[in-house]
Amino acid sequence: MTQEATKYRAQDLTEFLASAFRALDVPGHDAEKVARLMTQADLLGYDTHGSFRLRQYVNRLRDGGNNSRPDIKVIADTDATAVVDGDNGLGHLAMSRAAELAIEKARQHGIGWIGVRNSNHCGPASLYVNMLAEADMIGLMAAVGSANHVAPFGGLDLLLGTNPLALAVPAGTSPPFVLDMATTAAAAGKIKVLAQRGDPMPKGWMVDRQGEPLTDPKRQSEGLLLPIGGAKGYGLALAIGLIAGTLNGAAFGKDVVNFTKETAIPTNTGQFIAAISISAFADVGTFKASADRIFGEMRSSETLPGFDPVRIPGQERPEILATRQREGIPLHPNLVKVLAEIAGELGITELNAN
Amino acid sequence: MTQEATKYRAQDLTEFLASAFRALDVPGHDAEKVARLMTQADLLGYDTHGSFRLRQYVNRLRDGGNNSRPDIKVIADTDATAVVDGDNGLGHLAMSRAAELAIEKARQHGIGWIGVRNSNHCGPASLYVNMLAEADMIGLMAAVGSANHVAPFGGLDLLLGTNPLALAVPAGTSPPFVLDMATTAAAAGKIKVLAQRGDPMPKGWMVDRQGEPLTDPKRQSEGLLLPIGGAKGYGLALAIGLIAGTLNGAAFGKDVVNFTKETAIPTNTGQFIAAISISAFADVGTFKASADRIFGEMRSSETLPGFDPVRIPGQERPEILATRQREGIPLHPNLVKVLAEIAGELGITELNAN
Repeated sequence: MTQEATKYRAQDLTEFLASAFRALDVPGHDAEKVARLMTQADLLGYDTHGSFRLRQYVNRLRDGGNNSRPDIKVIADTDATAVVDGDNGLGHLAMSRAAELAIEKARQHGIGWIGVRNSNHCGPASLYVNMLAEADMIGLMAAVGSANHVAPFGGLDLLLGTNPLALAVPAGTSPPFVLDMATTAAAAGKIKVLAQRGDPMPKGWMVDRQGEPLTDPKRQSEGLLLPIGGAKGYGLALAIGLIAGTLNGAAFGKDVVNFTKETAIPTNTGQFIAAISISAFADVGTFKASADRIFGEMRSSETLPGFDPVRIPGQERPEILATRQREGIPLHPNLVKVLAEIAGELGITELNAN
Repeated sequence: MTQEATKYRAQDLTEFLASAFRALDVPGHDAEKVARLMTQADLLGYDTHGSFRLRQYVNRLRDGGNNSRPDIKVIADTDATAVVDGDNGLGHLAMSRAAELAIEKARQHGIGWIGVRNSNHCGPASLYVNMLAEADMIGLMAAVGSANHVAPFGGLDLLLGTNPLALAVPAGTSPPFVLDMATTAAAAGKIKVLAQRGDPMPKGWMVDRQGEPLTDPKRQSEGLLLPIGGAKGYGLALAIGLIAGTLNGAAFGKDVVNFTKETAIPTNTGQFIAAISISAFADVGTFKASADRIFGEMRSSETLPGFDPVRIPGQERPEILATRQREGIPLHPNLVKVLAEIAGELGITELNAN
């Protein structure tokens, strides 16, 4: 965050976000639920996936792309699997339901694997796998990205999204391991933030249609996001598309609707979440103590010249959370301006700094 | 394969491999099973994970590191999960058992997730996920690598393996999608092959302890394998270690025994395999037709300047299989020499070219 960012109280932000959704005909309970999850994303430092996304959600609810009053249903069900149909509502609603169902099934059958269709952008996947880790489960989630910014390896046609993958593993005294990664060198949200801030992209994030490096984030639409590890990242993105999308009857490949540009069309976004009950495999206390030991080994590693001490993915989050709960959530001036515009459009009370 | 490679019939290779195992006190049925899987790896073109590994397996069986007569048991069991204890036998035996059990559980409960402990190197993970794809299931497998060649991101201590990940998705008229990848830029087996052939490594595969590129494959032990995508590949390798290793009571981190160097010590190798029954989510025919369509979209992509047409991971395998079944399996002269040495040591009939 830059120094000029003003800070906002979590509760004020939640209330503002919920009032925006209510103004767009989202029922109070759902509006509150999504607003809380978006604020949680901001509190945890997932700055590209919290209130930063309100502009997109508002546009789609306003223009009819999203259903403000979804009837979320389980449309296929076995002991340990299910498919949830999000009825084109806000993605946070379908994914929360899927996470709850995954936990329930894992408690009963050792694992619960829930596919989701007719969903939408749901914020950071880490929110949902975190819920599983809190229930002493290992969480695994992936999603078909909300726009195709990636070509198959060696290709030029934009047929793949950043197709993110998240994994959470609870530990004992250490914070949980939480990996939340795009299968590309950079997530689309990070590029959006750079564009909003007027900063350039590092080389290696994108290439243009000749395969040359592209570093101006405002020219994102002219280029391709690069997968991690070349053909490997492409393979991962393709597998995620098949399992989070195609398997659940959701969009993948040419079917994918650009969530930002098309504000009046359903996206049929696909996701999946799996909960693996640790107690089905091991004594939970023993497992957590082993995880602590492993994390300690990694953190104690000697470092390469010029590198900071080794980190465990996600373990910086509790400190970010505590700081932001105490001091407020820093929002970039450009985002504050967008939120004020939204308040004006919807005729709701503006978000005020603490 | 280089031109000088002599070709061998699959059946002759299987018989040779089985006779080697029998000479090391492996019961006939198990010897045959492992030999067939190793030959299958060679037939499919996984040249670093088939008969190329016999030297390691022989050394460990000979020196007592591996148990030649394992009693493989299910030691934890819920509806949709289990833990298989491989009793330190050849890894192919524990993993075959796990794959069968995963299919059985997925048929009954929608998904089967099987953890494995006290296993060993089991050849390419693709062998096992292929079995699942043949049963109309999506297959997911990962393993703790058989030696620590990787440091945590920014670190120098070798605490992680290449921790490979495999995914198979069946299609209709297209061959199945099969991704079988190390979470490092290069798999350790590929470096072993280059060393055996006397060829250099490309930059980007390894760095030395100053962070400088390392390209001599014979100097592998002096450097670090690089994860794909930097911190992301490290995160993936760490997650796989926790889920394939720690969760199953198998080795991970400092516990990992170098499978090649330590021939007299059990490795307690950990793996997992998950079978997701397509019919629990969708009509199988519809799903396969959609997968065909997606693969067609990818293959039809315009290509970047200088690139070959886009490929789907694993779809070259049926052609390699057909060619090698027809013409024989090409084995590099250095590997042929090693197999002849083994024949001499064990007093078994040498492998003869067709």
